[in-house]
Amino acid sequence: MALILAVNAGSSSLKISLYRPTDNRDQPVDLVLTSSITNISSPPATFKFDGHKEEVPADEVKDHASAFACFLRRLKTLRGHDPTDIRHICHRVVHGGDFTTRLPVDRSAYHRIHGLSDLAPLHNGAALAVIEACLEKIQHAQSIAYFDSAFHRTIPSHIQAYAIDQTVAAKRGLKKYGFHGLSYAFILRSVASFLQRPQDTLNLIVLHLGSGASICAIRNGRSLDTSMGLTPLSGLPGATRSGDVDPSLIFHYTNKAGRMTHDPSLATDLRITAAEDILNRRSGWQSLAGTTDFGLICSRADPHAPPPSSPGPTTDPNAADPRCTLAFHLVVDRILDFVGAYHLKLGCAVDALVFSGGIGEKSALLRGVVGERVGCLGYVKVDEGRNERAGEEVERAVVVDIGVQAQGERAKRILVCQTDEQVEMARGCALDEEFRVKD
Amino acid sequence: MALILAVNAGSSSLKISLYRPTDNRDQPVDLVLTSSITNISSPPATFKFDGHKEEVPADEVKDHASAFACFLRRLKTLRGHDPTDIRHICHRVVHGGDFTTRLPVDRSAYHRIHGLSDLAPLHNGAALAVIEACLEKIQHAQSIAYFDSAFHRTIPSHIQAYAIDQTVAAKRGLKKYGFHGLSYAFILRSVASFLQRPQDTLNLIVLHLGSGASICAIRNGRSLDTSMGLTPLSGLPGATRSGDVDPSLIFHYTNKAGRMTHDPSLATDLRITAAEDILNRRSGWQSLAGTTDFGLICSRADPHAPPPSSPGPTTDPNAADPRCTLAFHLVVDRILDFVGAYHLKLGCAVDALVFSGGIGEKSALLRGVVGERVGCLGYVKVDEGRNERAGEEVERAVVVDIGVQAQGERAKRILVCQTDEQVEMARGCALDEEFRVKD
Repeated sequence: MALILAVNAGSSSLKISLYRPTDNRDQPVDLVLTSSITNISSPPATFKFDGHKEEVPADEVKDHASAFACFLRRLKTLRGHDPTDIRHICHRVVHGGDFTTRLPVDRSAYHRIHGLSDLAPLHNGAALAVIEACLEKIQHAQSIAYFDSAFHRTIPSHIQAYAIDQTVAAKRGLKKYGFHGLSYAFILRSVASFLQRPQDTLNLIVLHLGSGASICAIRNGRSLDTSMGLTPLSGLPGATRSGDVDPSLIFHYTNKAGRMTHDPSLATDLRITAAEDILNRRSGWQSLAGTTDFGLICSRADPHAPPPSSPGPTTDPNAADPRCTLAFHLVVDRILDFVGAYHLKLGCAVDALVFSGGIGEKSALLRGVVGERVGCLGYVKVDEGRNERAGEEVERAVVVDIGVQAQGERAKRILVCQTDEQVEMARGCALDEEFRVKD
Repeated sequence: MALILAVNAGSSSLKISLYRPTDNRDQPVDLVLTSSITNISSPPATFKFDGHKEEVPADEVKDHASAFACFLRRLKTLRGHDPTDIRHICHRVVHGGDFTTRLPVDRSAYHRIHGLSDLAPLHNGAALAVIEACLEKIQHAQSIAYFDSAFHRTIPSHIQAYAIDQTVAAKRGLKKYGFHGLSYAFILRSVASFLQRPQDTLNLIVLHLGSGASICAIRNGRSLDTSMGLTPLSGLPGATRSGDVDPSLIFHYTNKAGRMTHDPSLATDLRITAAEDILNRRSGWQSLAGTTDFGLICSRADPHAPPPSSPGPTTDPNAADPRCTLAFHLVVDRILDFVGAYHLKLGCAVDALVFSGGIGEKSALLRGVVGERVGCLGYVKVDEGRNERAGEEVERAVVVDIGVQAQGERAKRILVCQTDEQVEMARGCALDEEFRVKD
């Protein structure tokens, strides 16, 4: 039995899914199980097989490599799967530089990916640690890197380029790469299936809204533009990321912007400037509202009133928290800026606006407010009931239409999609001629 | 005779206009003369009274203060105006921090403006030099600072704020200020007059496109958003400015980003990081196409073909220059991103899209290409003949409608406006009760 493992390493978490290949090209893999390990960088870590509510402490987990080893042991002892049945391990790697497709990883390829860490010191580290553990300890399985940036290889050069010295840009690889590509590929395929349309006829604006958030304009099934750039820092704000700011802001924020940080929670071999640390890890809606939990921000914000000019903590426990009101409206404003820009970039010929990612799937409030604002561009009115139910329904249905039904045929649609980066990798692996296993 | 002088100091130029107040509130000043001094930072400077073609060398000009003194001398010797007739000197100051209106300048106010130079080291210096010269040598006239940022005081806090630590933001004044405000105020008034509509009923998207370029969304006659931010660096690319880039880009561009530059062409008392120098003065379309002249870029670009993926110099003198093609399409792309965003921000209820600034007034090609792309949003089709003639007509008419006439009433309009920051200051001064002169 040739199993496929798909590994999604975040900065402090590891999500792993196990798949069994099928003979059905439409559904080339069946899910066997998923698991997740969290709090890796703030021990004790916790381990669970998804679908089981109990999380168990995993004291032996010290880093991403030991977290992966912990998974393999429990896979055998608790679930009876022999790790030697695993033939392929798919790794989500955020920054793929100029790689335009997946890369089978041997020692030499590992070093090529590691070389990209200069561009993505905060983002590739966790995946590299797991890949290295696999190369050392699971030599019977082929590791394959799937890059979040690869989906955006179709962005035209005048959209990809920054208005900077092109000699330096070429030498140092300074251009828009874009990220969340595995998610966008999954969503594109799922929406095409839902709408019963070929992918290459679809124009979509897709919002991947999680603690890292981005938007993608898809024209004829290909990425035309996306909000993240050279790194995942630019574009929309995230839980702790600033998103776009004046490029000179950081030098007014601190006069130590260019110095290397010595924060011990960052891997020691990474070169991170204080600027990158501040803008990636100490900004975003947490810095506005005091929490990374966007759901909490929604529950405390006044979604109708404009934010006050100088928000501070409030004393009335029933009143909206002005800091949350500011954070909510700021995020909505930035989202709408990209939606407006991409709507025009797509020549106003948009088939659907798609919400995805943890926040996109869960926040009916955010969808309702954004939906109301885009109505003037010809998008369907959001149905209140369907919007409220979408968070649950999407778990079963993958794609849910939240528009008022009567309008559905005439107006541009608004959809919710539950994205799944792991299955996207496993599917790709199962369908890949190069990795076809005869067993 | 109480004359009003309006001074517009650029980094290497000085434009000065002389006005005579009238009793007509609709046209409170009459223009007496204008003059300009250029190449101040790359001597020999040249001097001319506008309307006279000959430029005369001005060897005595070494800096902005001596340029201003040169103007005053020639005003008397060549034009017979006694400088003691000047009662008010209006100075355009780019960065006004939290000042929401004009500021009469005495020694104390001068120091308050000088204190803002931390936020605008590259932009306020020239104006400050002229103000200082006026305070020292022309004590019979009242100097008044008019801030480019003041027009944007109405931007709501959730649009103004960056998603960064708000304690640091409040302490260091890190938020969107916006610039080109004198120009936007002039354009708003001129367009209202042209359309015979009260200013506070107008929703406009105004493009001020010059070597520094920005866009403003005006709702009910007030600034709702603008593309420049904490400094004039962010937003659209300019002749030598990058505009928005990934906030971490500069640290991958150079590992000396945070160091102070010692470029002797910058005033010695200014603190400019290498990053600010690179992104403000060594980027923009010059870094893409090798020229600051956008008209030249337009003439060499292929406006119809998408740019090649790796543009380099071309050898065929008749072929389009791929570097110019890249620069042209990149600028169009960034302009359209803001137009799309602001169209939605204004609830799609836009009365007119207005082109202004040197490039906005002169480039029929740019207007034609942008006009074609925004047609799907309900903007009028651009009339080819009117568009071609607009560059000349706008000098006489101030505002010109370039839409196909038959569509004019049904579609959102596209206008061209010749902006005039100096007359905007002089008007404000003449109508200002505080500066009413009895003579």
